[in-house]
Amino acid sequence: MRTRPLKVALLGCGVVGSEVARIMTTHAEDLAARVGAPVELAGVAVRRPSKVREGIDPSLITTDATALVKRGDIDVVVEVIGGIEPARSLITTAFEHGASVVSANKALLAQDGAALHAAAEEHGRDLYYEAAVAGAIPLIRPLRESLAGDKINRVMGIVNGTTNFILDKMDTTGAGYQEALDEATALGYAEADPTADVEGFDAAAKAAILAGIAFHSRVRLDDVYREGMTEVTAADFASAKQMGCTIKLLAICERAADGESVTARVHPAMIPLSHPLASVRGAYNAVFVEADAAGQLMFYGPGAGGSPTASAVLGDLVAVCRNKLAESTGPGESAYAQLPVSPMGDVVTRYHISLDVADKPGVLAQVATVFAEHGVSIDTVRQQGKDGEASLVVVTHRASDASLSGTVEALRNLDTVRGVASIMRVEGE
Amino acid sequence: MRTRPLKVALLGCGVVGSEVARIMTTHAEDLAARVGAPVELAGVAVRRPSKVREGIDPSLITTDATALVKRGDIDVVVEVIGGIEPARSLITTAFEHGASVVSANKALLAQDGAALHAAAEEHGRDLYYEAAVAGAIPLIRPLRESLAGDKINRVMGIVNGTTNFILDKMDTTGAGYQEALDEATALGYAEADPTADVEGFDAAAKAAILAGIAFHSRVRLDDVYREGMTEVTAADFASAKQMGCTIKLLAICERAADGESVTARVHPAMIPLSHPLASVRGAYNAVFVEADAAGQLMFYGPGAGGSPTASAVLGDLVAVCRNKLAESTGPGESAYAQLPVSPMGDVVTRYHISLDVADKPGVLAQVATVFAEHGVSIDTVRQQGKDGEASLVVVTHRASDASLSGTVEALRNLDTVRGVASIMRVEGE
Repeated sequence: MRTRPLKVALLGCGVVGSEVARIMTTHAEDLAARVGAPVELAGVAVRRPSKVREGIDPSLITTDATALVKRGDIDVVVEVIGGIEPARSLITTAFEHGASVVSANKALLAQDGAALHAAAEEHGRDLYYEAAVAGAIPLIRPLRESLAGDKINRVMGIVNGTTNFILDKMDTTGAGYQEALDEATALGYAEADPTADVEGFDAAAKAAILAGIAFHSRVRLDDVYREGMTEVTAADFASAKQMGCTIKLLAICERAADGESVTARVHPAMIPLSHPLASVRGAYNAVFVEADAAGQLMFYGPGAGGSPTASAVLGDLVAVCRNKLAESTGPGESAYAQLPVSPMGDVVTRYHISLDVADKPGVLAQVATVFAEHGVSIDTVRQQGKDGEASLVVVTHRASDASLSGTVEALRNLDTVRGVASIMRVEGE
Repeated sequence: MRTRPLKVALLGCGVVGSEVARIMTTHAEDLAARVGAPVELAGVAVRRPSKVREGIDPSLITTDATALVKRGDIDVVVEVIGGIEPARSLITTAFEHGASVVSANKALLAQDGAALHAAAEEHGRDLYYEAAVAGAIPLIRPLRESLAGDKINRVMGIVNGTTNFILDKMDTTGAGYQEALDEATALGYAEADPTADVEGFDAAAKAAILAGIAFHSRVRLDDVYREGMTEVTAADFASAKQMGCTIKLLAICERAADGESVTARVHPAMIPLSHPLASVRGAYNAVFVEADAAGQLMFYGPGAGGSPTASAVLGDLVAVCRNKLAESTGPGESAYAQLPVSPMGDVVTRYHISLDVADKPGVLAQVATVFAEHGVSIDTVRQQGKDGEASLVVVTHRASDASLSGTVEALRNLDTVRGVASIMRVEGE
């Protein structure tokens, strides 16, 4: 084994960073054995240097992250700051000064992944980011290495633990959205401002990263259709149950049937209880992958949290350190397929639509005519009358999202339709 | 991109080999883009050269596998023959002649993995074998790379599709073992001689490979405790249901509580219906991994079959080709921890024991005394009387397998115990 240590600069020492530092210190011998050389924590950039950080040599602490990555003796920079800046500049500077980078930064990767990969390649360095998607679940590496000889057609998953906790709570207790969110906040599963989670921004960033890797193309956050889950109601769950389904916030990346384009989207959807994703409980994540030869695979585990994310970071750190010793690099960006991203209207899916309608003869015929005019075939209709009003639940066959949206708009204009109570896509069948 | 192709020799062209050849041919452009150079099928060694093999250039076919691996221009040898010889000699010869090796050979890896890894390292070549365990499910790579910075404590999984199909059938239909086996055979899930599957040899080989990788130690097939599932009865499933459990043939690799040794075993076991492994249906495989930082992960997918196994082989092929171009090698054997393998008696687990006993006062007291004398604590007892006979179902707390075996032996010697109807371990709680 080489005795000269590989030097690691840690940017950020919050929940994840402190756990990375802890494991690097307490498992130093194991890491050295796995890498083939000692791995040394050479500096830790933080915002609040006065905070007591157990187990970290105070002399390593600095507030000058830029100076740290410019030191020149750093082999690997571990970036767990999050956000776009200063993370982006620090990573670019790290490459320029000879370091490889391990990042857990989904927002940055989803927005500027191509530029960062290009910078890594220009300087002959590695950019690894297993921790950016689904925490400890090995997903990036299986997609880009294990399935490198296969053709991936769909990646569909629960990639946000906060929203899964809330939806699971609504499903199992009958609670409304606000009540479930309050509990998630009280238990620390949701942040004080839960927007990034509940509006699907976090999941959309992960969808962009997954789609890019799965389809060997460039997919940015802006390419991902996004709907949050704040309007999912207890009534929606009741409807889902009647269909033998539950509701999950899904990130879905698909190759079009003709293979010439891809789509990426995040929205709540009904999925059958028999689908493996339906039984993913609490804050767990799971991602379902469909490939030509491999068939259906699922990866399941904790999607967030300090320790699980640190596990993913350290796995990358070992790989990057090994590459450094071998004077090689791992697989970089693979975007050779250059498939364009189609808009949401091109997605082919199914709808579950609840309508409040007048309780009089001919309504169903009118409604059915609207579906037919838009080329959307109806799978099932359920009619329930009550006191002069009635509800109509329509489940469609597969059709383009554009046709389905057009159908819903036309339904809203019918005199006999008093309101569209809910619209939800149905997936996983 | 490099224009000179990397040359691949395929040893074996059965269900897996023919699918590897097919994908290499039909997806040649994708493979080239992912590798960074064309990948060319340069020779195919078979036993029956006269068989028509669609899509394979007949001039590539040879019966002389040894000459093929000795050619000197072969970059990667893909071994999908299976069995110990001639696979072992061919792989060793391949290394000696400058080729890296991708193998799907679980039996060989479980028996001679250390020697093969040493040969690969001596010649500076790669030995990859994702396809040897759980077909298309990425498992070897996540364990040895994604979790390289973590400490794995347990790997527990369903790694044989044939036996899972049979047990699932018994569970869902109430069929007996023979009836379920017959159906598995008729559907092609079980071979004419199902011994390797139903007696657990196949799963034991996979357990040896997984334990070695997970614990950075050498674990051979002989180190794995093995019990088949041919004696599991419909009555066992009925008992399991009463406990809220089902029965699976599990491969379990564990680090001892003191961290100083490991165990590896294959046997049928009851697991709670709430455990993710309980819902693995049909011929699917799934492996549950517990690590210090990552927490609980699960990997799920098709565990066998031509296409899924080919997917795993091709993922390895891409990695090995990339390493070859970069003039580097991937991670080799990691056995630095050198943890010894403890015997089955040291395993700590729980037992579910059904006893046929005399229906008279004092029997329970006698039985309970035997458990106490062996230091085994009882969790629950259920007594059922019928016509002068009675059955007693005892579920124990965790105790060493040696104590539990000793208890059972002593119970057999009690006058009031007419027979031990079944003994089954309880896992996953």
